[in-house]
Amino acid sequence: MLDYQAILEEIHQSLNSVKDTGEVASYIPELANVPKEKFGIHLQLITGENFSVGDASEKLSIQSISKVLSLTKAFQLVGNHLWERMDVEPSGNPFNHLSLLELENGIPRNPLINSGAIVVADILLSNLKNPKKDFLDFVRNLAHDNTISFNEKVAESERLNGYNNYAAANLLKSYGNLHNNVEDVLDFYFHQCSIMMDCRQLTNAFFVYANKGKCLKNIQHLTASQVKRINAIMLTCGFYDEAGEFAFEVGLPGKSGVGGGIVALLPHCFTIATWAPALNPQGNSYLGMKALEHFTTKTKLSIF
Amino acid sequence: MLDYQAILEEIHQSLNSVKDTGEVASYIPELANVPKEKFGIHLQLITGENFSVGDASEKLSIQSISKVLSLTKAFQLVGNHLWERMDVEPSGNPFNHLSLLELENGIPRNPLINSGAIVVADILLSNLKNPKKDFLDFVRNLAHDNTISFNEKVAESERLNGYNNYAAANLLKSYGNLHNNVEDVLDFYFHQCSIMMDCRQLTNAFFVYANKGKCLKNIQHLTASQVKRINAIMLTCGFYDEAGEFAFEVGLPGKSGVGGGIVALLPHCFTIATWAPALNPQGNSYLGMKALEHFTTKTKLSIF
Amino acid sequence: MLDYQAILEEIHQSLNSVKDTGEVASYIPELANVPKEKFGIHLQLITGENFSVGDASEKLSIQSISKVLSLTKAFQLVGNHLWERMDVEPSGNPFNHLSLLELENGIPRNPLINSGAIVVADILLSNLKNPKKDFLDFVRNLAHDNTISFNEKVAESERLNGYNNYAAANLLKSYGNLHNNVEDVLDFYFHQCSIMMDCRQLTNAFFVYANKGKCLKNIQHLTASQVKRINAIMLTCGFYDEAGEFAFEVGLPGKSGVGGGIVALLPHCFTIATWAPALNPQGNSYLGMKALEHFTTKTKLSIF
Amino acid sequence: MLDYQAILEEIHQSLNSVKDTGEVASYIPELANVPKEKFGIHLQLITGENFSVGDASEKLSIQSISKVLSLTKAFQLVGNHLWERMDVEPSGNPFNHLSLLELENGIPRNPLINSGAIVVADILLSNLKNPKKDFLDFVRNLAHDNTISFNEKVAESERLNGYNNYAAANLLKSYGNLHNNVEDVLDFYFHQCSIMMDCRQLTNAFFVYANKGKCLKNIQHLTASQVKRINAIMLTCGFYDEAGEFAFEVGLPGKSGVGGGIVALLPHCFTIATWAPALNPQGNSYLGMKALEHFTTKTKLSIF
Repeated sequence: MLDYQAILEEIHQSLNSVKDTGEVASYIPELANVPKEKFGIHLQLITGENFSVGDASEKLSIQSISKVLSLTKAFQLVGNHLWERMDVEPSGNPFNHLSLLELENGIPRNPLINSGAIVVADILLSNLKNPKKDFLDFVRNLAHDNTISFNEKVAESERLNGYNNYAAANLLKSYGNLHNNVEDVLDFYFHQCSIMMDCRQLTNAFFVYANKGKCLKNIQHLTASQVKRINAIMLTCGFYDEAGEFAFEVGLPGKSGVGGGIVALLPHCFTIATWAPALNPQGNSYLGMKALEHFTTKTKLSIF
Repeated sequence: MLDYQAILEEIHQSLNSVKDTGEVASYIPELANVPKEKFGIHLQLITGENFSVGDASEKLSIQSISKVLSLTKAFQLVGNHLWERMDVEPSGNPFNHLSLLELENGIPRNPLINSGAIVVADILLSNLKNPKKDFLDFVRNLAHDNTISFNEKVAESERLNGYNNYAAANLLKSYGNLHNNVEDVLDFYFHQCSIMMDCRQLTNAFFVYANKGKCLKNIQHLTASQVKRINAIMLTCGFYDEAGEFAFEVGLPGKSGVGGGIVALLPHCFTIATWAPALNPQGNSYLGMKALEHFTTKTKLSIF
Repeated sequence: MLDYQAILEEIHQSLNSVKDTGEVASYIPELANVPKEKFGIHLQLITGENFSVGDASEKLSIQSISKVLSLTKAFQLVGNHLWERMDVEPSGNPFNHLSLLELENGIPRNPLINSGAIVVADILLSNLKNPKKDFLDFVRNLAHDNTISFNEKVAESERLNGYNNYAAANLLKSYGNLHNNVEDVLDFYFHQCSIMMDCRQLTNAFFVYANKGKCLKNIQHLTASQVKRINAIMLTCGFYDEAGEFAFEVGLPGKSGVGGGIVALLPHCFTIATWAPALNPQGNSYLGMKALEHFTTKTKLSIF
Repeated sequence: MLDYQAILEEIHQSLNSVKDTGEVASYIPELANVPKEKFGIHLQLITGENFSVGDASEKLSIQSISKVLSLTKAFQLVGNHLWERMDVEPSGNPFNHLSLLELENGIPRNPLINSGAIVVADILLSNLKNPKKDFLDFVRNLAHDNTISFNEKVAESERLNGYNNYAAANLLKSYGNLHNNVEDVLDFYFHQCSIMMDCRQLTNAFFVYANKGKCLKNIQHLTASQVKRINAIMLTCGFYDEAGEFAFEVGLPGKSGVGGGIVALLPHCFTIATWAPALNPQGNSYLGMKALEHFTTKTKLSIF
């Protein structure tokens, strides 16, 4: 068997020497102030074994990683009706581009770009009694961890600087693809993005996608078919306009966030989360991508 | 000399029989409820003579026609600094498309598309003491008519349905090309669009563009060079993605609005305004365009 | 163990009743004349077992499926230098769109869209002694079958009707991303697309992608890392602007062609080829997509 | 009356000191070798008076200026059927972009962008007995000058380097909007672009557009309505993606070419041609634009 701990440590070591790793997201102070040198990996096997290096137990702002979790909840609630309001195709465009949305009459390309995730948030708002509380409970249940919370300061900062998201939400509204009002939907959306989790908690929450829909405690949250579909969306759409590159270099379904986190998984085998706050120009964690590339190369474990 | 009254009457007659004239704008009740059969033309010669047919003295919602007036005020106030925040090229795209704005990093193509006019509104907000009052006074002075006013119901309806304008304003804000806050800028913008004027008042207000910058009362509001530039922008950008068509068929600088109004002019010669509420698919008054085409064909008067 | 033969027969049966299956490609007579009701599936397990239904041993024009084979040969020849001349991102656009190519200065989005495959053909022309013969030999070796040939009539028809490909090749040339002359590159390209293979031969040729780079006869043609990369490209880019849909519904790396063929594979497990000439609006075999969706649903075998 | 000779000399003087004037077109040696410092202006009044400065009697490659002349001939031949195959809207895009053509299904935006001019060439090929000879005769008649000729070396160089035009012609062909074969159409097109004329000859040929359709010898070539339309197209589409800028700064219908020539006119008043080979980034003569801006500012003569 592979010595996973040794592999993680080797990766940690080899990436330590990389100098130019990109820039920490700077559009809100809460992200700008995160030290650039933070680095952590957590690996959880389907068998329950866990391996860690670096800052894997320090909380990070999960940001866009939350889009997979909100998609999951919405998929549970409305099933394939989801696809009446968004598509499942890669966008081939940077993550914040409204052009495609306009060209395609308000139907987002997929649920993992901002406009798609805003429609997912709208669906949750329409279908949950206490949207923010219920969604947080859902994430806590998935990860079996009641310490997971929103970061209100982050959510508020996002609200004050989220002009591009306001533009997207209003454009969706102009096409009739937002049923609740803009402020309410974005309040929910900014909260979901503000959730704080550490790398281990991320692997806990994403266990369900590696385990045919069953979470850590063996509760069935999704059907095998739903899991297959969510994993497919992560693979083709999880990394903004670098989805092809991530599939090509790493070969795992996964999702990144501007907080510098990435979580990825191999069905029936493992989930893995990395954290390194400096981002490449496409908005993905530079060292996180490198770490996962090393990991799948060293272990020869990928979906391909 | 041409018998202008006879020509206007001929045009009125010949257009009376046109059946399929398009649809009245329906996104707000105040526009949707305007009777489709309204039709008026007012012609004012540079010499001061006036000719009218039909409903030329009934007030209409000037809507986008106001963009020329706000551009004029902003040009007075900040001169060529205007062009640091917008371009003067035709957009080649429908009037509400955000795609170009995104592609060109928040610099609107020209001041007569929505995003450009929103930046102009932002400039007026930054430079006028009492923006709405001062702008209304400016329009009243230009037209020498103190009865011109905002329609508060129209402005409020626009605000409640203006998702696309909210999207544009927020996108501009995300690029740093909106200095005041979104709500304030759009409040001003929706008010300027809500101004009610009849065809004669429109020719009064636009007299300045036919008369080298001097208004009806011979006051110099703009330099000859500024007038030339505003007329050029009207010609290349005044009719959404039908600017080429209007130049080709009519051959006059002009501006249309979704209220069904069009105002056009021949420098040193005349200003003319038409009103017919039903719009073609490009958002321009169907019969208004036809009337002006007949007028320049019959009179052989055009800039070309 | 699964009764694969029974599963294939069930699928055959159930799809028999589908009435509206799309249209056979009609831009050249050689494709237009293929009977719409042709239908075949061939499944080959990594263990060497084979299962068939329908017209699986009848030859079809492989068309764009050949792009995976030419990519493979070019990857062998020039390694990662390939990526200096094209990217690996999904295009998010129909297969023949030149817009993206122009926007991105002559660098094709990926090797499986037409413009990318034309650059791959250019690379083969620069690196093979007898390009057409050598490439055909390569395909024959991969499939261990010397009966595989070009269809000269198809190649000639493509040449006479291939205006869009001529447009793409000339556009590439204008950006300096075509080193040989347009006629020579397209002659090669039209020949590679004209190759005739039956479903079994397709699974033979694609065995290498399911078997870590080793072909049927256990010869290593590609490294495991190269196989991973080609499979990733098939998954993210193999179905024009329906790549997301195919990943979502089927969950296998694969490639389609306008001849109605699809070949797909599960690493370490199987390769499968389907043939049904009628295409959906995106240019993929309508029944072939359905058949593969049924297959992965029934067997629960997918990469996700 | 204005002292036109003095004005032209003042302009010549003042532009002499401009240092950074852009780059001479370099894609073919025949253009690249033209000395950057060439500069000429020729002005012809409707009354027949002529004024010149600099190299106004030296021949230049008229290039895209020929598009107005071919449009004129095609308009004569097929009238408004022209508009079944192209539009009259400004493109809002650089002159060689195929994206819009693809987006709009092979209908060029206007006759003055490359793709539109190629369709015009196709129409001439279908309607003239000896296309190249007949067109040259037409230009000679318009200018009353039999010394005007093609430059075969320029035409041949264009052919060898015209990949972008080959791309456009093939794309048009793929949409069925080219009736003759690609080689024949482009042979004609490259010849029309290769015509050599000096500034005075250009003002002679364009006299017709300032004189209601009558040429220098008072022969009626076009109706007043056709002249109006061609002038409108020049104004909205004559300067690639700088049409708005030219209208704004200069305020005259006109057309530029990559040979550094510009010809412009004021209806009922004058035609003017400038030559300065160095181009700005949009492909228009840098000093030619400046010269015309000075001219209309000093004389206060513009259509606006």
